[in-house]
Amino acid sequence: MQLLFCVTHVFDPGNNELTVKEGEILTVTNQNVGGGWVEAQNSRGTVGLVPEDYIEVKTILIISFVFDLTSLYRALDEIRKLFPGFSKTPNPEVYLLTKHIAKGDERLPIYTGEVGPVWLYPQTQLDCVVADPKKGSKMYGLKSYIEYQVTPNTTNRPVNHRYKHFDWLYERLVEKFACALPIPCLPDKQVTGRFEEEFIKMRMERLQGWMSRMCRHPVISNSEVFQLFLNYRDEKEWKLGKRRAEKDEIVGVKIFSNIDPELPELDPAQVEQKYEMYSQFTRSMDNSVKELLAVGHLHWKRCTGPLQKEYRQIGKAFQNLSSVFNTSAYPRESTLTEALTATGKTYEEIAEIVAEQPKKDLHFLMETNLEYKGLLGCFPDTITVHKAAIDKVKEADHVVVMNKISQQDKLIMEKNLSTMSYALQAEMNHFHSNRIYDYNRLMQFYLEEQVKFYETIAEKLKKTLGQYTTM
Amino acid sequence: MQLLFCVTHVFDPGNNELTVKEGEILTVTNQNVGGGWVEAQNSRGTVGLVPEDYIEVKTILIISFVFDLTSLYRALDEIRKLFPGFSKTPNPEVYLLTKHIAKGDERLPIYTGEVGPVWLYPQTQLDCVVADPKKGSKMYGLKSYIEYQVTPNTTNRPVNHRYKHFDWLYERLVEKFACALPIPCLPDKQVTGRFEEEFIKMRMERLQGWMSRMCRHPVISNSEVFQLFLNYRDEKEWKLGKRRAEKDEIVGVKIFSNIDPELPELDPAQVEQKYEMYSQFTRSMDNSVKELLAVGHLHWKRCTGPLQKEYRQIGKAFQNLSSVFNTSAYPRESTLTEALTATGKTYEEIAEIVAEQPKKDLHFLMETNLEYKGLLGCFPDTITVHKAAIDKVKEADHVVVMNKISQQDKLIMEKNLSTMSYALQAEMNHFHSNRIYDYNRLMQFYLEEQVKFYETIAEKLKKTLGQYTTM
Repeated sequence: MQLLFCVTHVFDPGNNELTVKEGEILTVTNQNVGGGWVEAQNSRGTVGLVPEDYIEVKTILIISFVFDLTSLYRALDEIRKLFPGFSKTPNPEVYLLTKHIAKGDERLPIYTGEVGPVWLYPQTQLDCVVADPKKGSKMYGLKSYIEYQVTPNTTNRPVNHRYKHFDWLYERLVEKFACALPIPCLPDKQVTGRFEEEFIKMRMERLQGWMSRMCRHPVISNSEVFQLFLNYRDEKEWKLGKRRAEKDEIVGVKIFSNIDPELPELDPAQVEQKYEMYSQFTRSMDNSVKELLAVGHLHWKRCTGPLQKEYRQIGKAFQNLSSVFNTSAYPRESTLTEALTATGKTYEEIAEIVAEQPKKDLHFLMETNLEYKGLLGCFPDTITVHKAAIDKVKEADHVVVMNKISQQDKLIMEKNLSTMSYALQAEMNHFHSNRIYDYNRLMQFYLEEQVKFYETIAEKLKKTLGQYTTM
Repeated sequence: MQLLFCVTHVFDPGNNELTVKEGEILTVTNQNVGGGWVEAQNSRGTVGLVPEDYIEVKTILIISFVFDLTSLYRALDEIRKLFPGFSKTPNPEVYLLTKHIAKGDERLPIYTGEVGPVWLYPQTQLDCVVADPKKGSKMYGLKSYIEYQVTPNTTNRPVNHRYKHFDWLYERLVEKFACALPIPCLPDKQVTGRFEEEFIKMRMERLQGWMSRMCRHPVISNSEVFQLFLNYRDEKEWKLGKRRAEKDEIVGVKIFSNIDPELPELDPAQVEQKYEMYSQFTRSMDNSVKELLAVGHLHWKRCTGPLQKEYRQIGKAFQNLSSVFNTSAYPRESTLTEALTATGKTYEEIAEIVAEQPKKDLHFLMETNLEYKGLLGCFPDTITVHKAAIDKVKEADHVVVMNKISQQDKLIMEKNLSTMSYALQAEMNHFHSNRIYDYNRLMQFYLEEQVKFYETIAEKLKKTLGQYTTM
């Protein structure tokens, strides 16, 4: 099978990289270069490296020979892994019709907590620190990359990971869990400027946020692939683990077969009602989060733009007035002119405080809401799988009549739907509990910083006020 | 003598008023209607009332007969009184060449104070309160006007004055003193909307500011015309006083003949240097004041426009998020949603505080600087008279040689120039001392209000912060 790629961005290369133009068709000659690069050949026969992000599959021209459907599906799966955009809503039918008994390590129990169905939470919560970004290189220095140190609180032993490793982990988690758990996207890929300090700091902060969220999830944090990512001891263990994870068969809708709610079976009608509510809630919250992000963005620009400028101008105007007063040759001027100069300087300081403030408070508010925007963006897909399952169960009666499935099959479907519903309820409760924690913490932090901001300015103005003569 | 007028604004009249178009030529048939109105006839023969402010003299077509130059000057003086725009820089020559002995009530002494030459200041400072605007009417209710109550601190007996009376006083003061003292303009004339509450309040405040400034001036406050304005006992006294003031002969450059500096005669070179300094200072301060007004205006618009809007949006966004959270059906939500709603409302309150703040602090800053802008605008004209006097004295040697004036005349000129210079120095010192007082008071007031503003917001945010659960 040969893949042809279409260039999506103009790429202006260094050393052994290939110059490509938007819309140009390339043949990939080596997909395993690594580091986010592929080796490709253009129509003029030139071979060179191209960033993966700059190309997309345009057409599958030749599928040389298809032995059977299984092979075709496996081939399509391969493609889907490479290009997540290709994936369609998974069909829950495969899962619904099979009788499952979750077993061993893979079993995901659901209990009734105070708030309803909940996942099994570990005694101590996993967390990790993403820190210490270092530049590394490979291919005899031809390719550079940034490596982050990830230290879990369990072993306290750091492991090194590049962005592409996080991305690999993300892909595995999506593949394995996305039907049941919304897996938020990683921070954006970026090719240009990816070695700039500011960018590295921001990416690290966002990777930290993403990892912390994954650590807090009882199902994800306990999964083999996630544990591998945090705890591998050497390159060999990592490579073996990677291969194992890539071959994992319990992916897509099959994940529900591991779920074991030790709870009474639910009525499909109730289930449907809950889904509507979840769907409505996540959509509304998504809108609300976007509204907050929009006004936050506006306010940020106002503080660092016109407001800073204006306070500087006010500061300058007072200082200029003071300078003019100083030329009066009138003998009783100095107290006023000194106080006026100090006032002017205070407003210049205020200008800088105003411009720096968003980084201190709005930044965290924006980052948290961006994370939630990403998370909320995953819910529709997850909920769609569940809604499709309900539709299948609804059709079941009709299908039984037509003798396509047995009455027994129908009961299994209902039992499995109930399991899926418990999974979503547990996940929603996990989401709600995290949301309350996150927003409570966020709002307190934001308000504390805002109070400090206003108090600092009041204090500064009070000090300059004290310089004037009392009358 | 017949005056033709040219319409400067379209005027859309009520009852007995004349419809006029911009550029239309009118013949004034009665100038003594009063209340800022004249009776005029248009080219179609229609007669009606037109606001004075809407017309200007275009051409003096017929000066029927001129007996002598005195009569011509008197006629031109009449016109100049009606239309101050007509006035030219007064020629100091008339004054410079005459030997004067200031006498009696009119004498304006200058002493040496700590800061140099100063006017004679009264023991207790005159002040007055402009208050209680009331609507009055005359011409059987056809014309309405606003009457203000003016109460001086000396008699504590209120007198009533309409805007046109203030304007009359202003004209008298300009006529009598403007060569020696900068007389700041009255607040703007206005025809439309002049009965609206907001406008009346603003005009009253500005008339108060103008009157207080006039009261603080030792020469102005002690003048007969100013005392008449504050202290007249009945309509008869007022009318008689008005007539007397309008016939006052000691106007223009003649005012210097009343000035009596009991100080050694000054060297013309020194005088010139001082004038340059005053000129430079008032010009620089004028620029600085305008800069402050410009940024103040910008900041005012920012606070009442985009900032208010943005804080409202932030408030709304928090409240919307809270509403969404309320629909979660998750049991542990209420503390967060209540706190979030409170935060949202706090930001809405902040929006209003931000929008109201300029009225509390910036308003006084702007008004004071507007007053100073007006005052500073008068200095160039005043200083020009003095510079013209220096030029005349410089020419004197040459003129003596040509036998046009005697050596004695030259000495008189130098003596008179010295007197003029003392007057300007006393006036500059008066200006400086007021300026330091005004700006010291202004800045303290502004900063106090700014501190309150930031403290109020910090306090409100602290209160809402307290509503979140401590973690």
